[in-house]
Amino acid sequence: MTRTTPTATATAYASPASPAADDVTRVAVSTVIFSLRRTPGVDRASVVLPLVRRTRDPFEGRWALPGGWLDARESLDAAASRTLAETTGLAPSYLEQLYAFGAVDRSPTRVVSIVYWALLREDESGIEPQENVAWFDTTALPTLAFDHDEIVDYALWRLRNKVGYSRIAHGLLPDEFTLAELREVYESILDRRLDPANFRRQVENSGTLIPTDAFRTGSHRPARLYRYNSDVELADRGPLTSRR
Amino acid sequence: MTRTTPTATATAYASPASPAADDVTRVAVSTVIFSLRRTPGVDRASVVLPLVRRTRDPFEGRWALPGGWLDARESLDAAASRTLAETTGLAPSYLEQLYAFGAVDRSPTRVVSIVYWALLREDESGIEPQENVAWFDTTALPTLAFDHDEIVDYALWRLRNKVGYSRIAHGLLPDEFTLAELREVYESILDRRLDPANFRRQVENSGTLIPTDAFRTGSHRPARLYRYNSDVELADRGPLTSRR
Repeated sequence: MTRTTPTATATAYASPASPAADDVTRVAVSTVIFSLRRTPGVDRASVVLPLVRRTRDPFEGRWALPGGWLDARESLDAAASRTLAETTGLAPSYLEQLYAFGAVDRSPTRVVSIVYWALLREDESGIEPQENVAWFDTTALPTLAFDHDEIVDYALWRLRNKVGYSRIAHGLLPDEFTLAELREVYESILDRRLDPANFRRQVENSGTLIPTDAFRTGSHRPARLYRYNSDVELADRGPLTSRR
Repeated sequence: MTRTTPTATATAYASPASPAADDVTRVAVSTVIFSLRRTPGVDRASVVLPLVRRTRDPFEGRWALPGGWLDARESLDAAASRTLAETTGLAPSYLEQLYAFGAVDRSPTRVVSIVYWALLREDESGIEPQENVAWFDTTALPTLAFDHDEIVDYALWRLRNKVGYSRIAHGLLPDEFTLAELREVYESILDRRLDPANFRRQVENSGTLIPTDAFRTGSHRPARLYRYNSDVELADRGPLTSRR
């Protein structure tokens, strides 16, 4: 570390003068919603996310993450929910803050975007048919507006690295599911095969799922149904959770 | 989840009109810097952080986290480093984004604060004597300005829950250290005793520390020195790391 000479004390927050017109930073929110889509005849489900086509400059015609401007009278969480609903009609029960993106050149005007994310079950992820809203497979995305390619890359990395069994089960599966169904979801997200025996052992040791007394029957051997353990906290917000 | 009727497509980002004077949201950055302080004769080190006393309204006279306004021509990371240096003279080599705080009532005017955090070694955490800057023990903090009490609570929670052996060793200890020294740091952060044998086993299994051929000698049995494994990525930024 290097030392610098202090040049000011705690006056930086005081008396915010009205910023000059070319010195305005605006705050936006965007959301990354992940869900799964199964195509008949295709073995593995696809990880999909909704995008909105821009109808004005900048980046007119390009696809972008759902979002919009923060209103000065609403919280960041409320703005994320409102703009997502306005642009796509989607309303997940819980949006989690992901990261704030603030590179100087990410938009023609200066915009800091607070990005939220959520997982949605297939049965929750319907969108009323609209010309400028669509779900895209994350492995076949167009070039997005602004720095939204980078934001999606980051969100996918977080999904692959940081999302535990409980959250996946709660966010992407119905209330009860077999271990094979959970494993298939993981295989879709990680885009690789997982060893069934190892997967079962890890899940059982994780304490995040609870076996039920029910079984899925059908053409295969009956398979036990599990549900996620609601005692396990899904989000990593710690003391912030109580303020929601 | 509930469904809402879409009321707009992707026009929310377009044509930002100049906001009315009472509708301005400003962006600030704040930083939480954790370090350790050892008091002669006291067994356990204290977790400390630097605060800056406010010299103007709002909250004149209260202590606050170092920080200041984002300049429209600098990135969030750069603003965090600059305002920390200006208010305290501290310049950690790496600041990590922690969370964006944006409750409507957190300040008399509307302010969204992007909060950064870092760990500093004791030998890096000197501050030139200044009237309005001081280090505080995190177990004996005054009531802070704005929502900074909540921000510190959240940062401490993240420190206790999410910081692995490698990051602690890299951020708070010299280049080489004994396992007892590392354990003492953990005991300070967690504010409880840890079993030495269990701690040693966990560290050795973690792969985040590398044993050296050197030993600490003195009044006790010689103790092997370790260094942190620089192959282990310290921050959880994934694809964002390459952009720094």
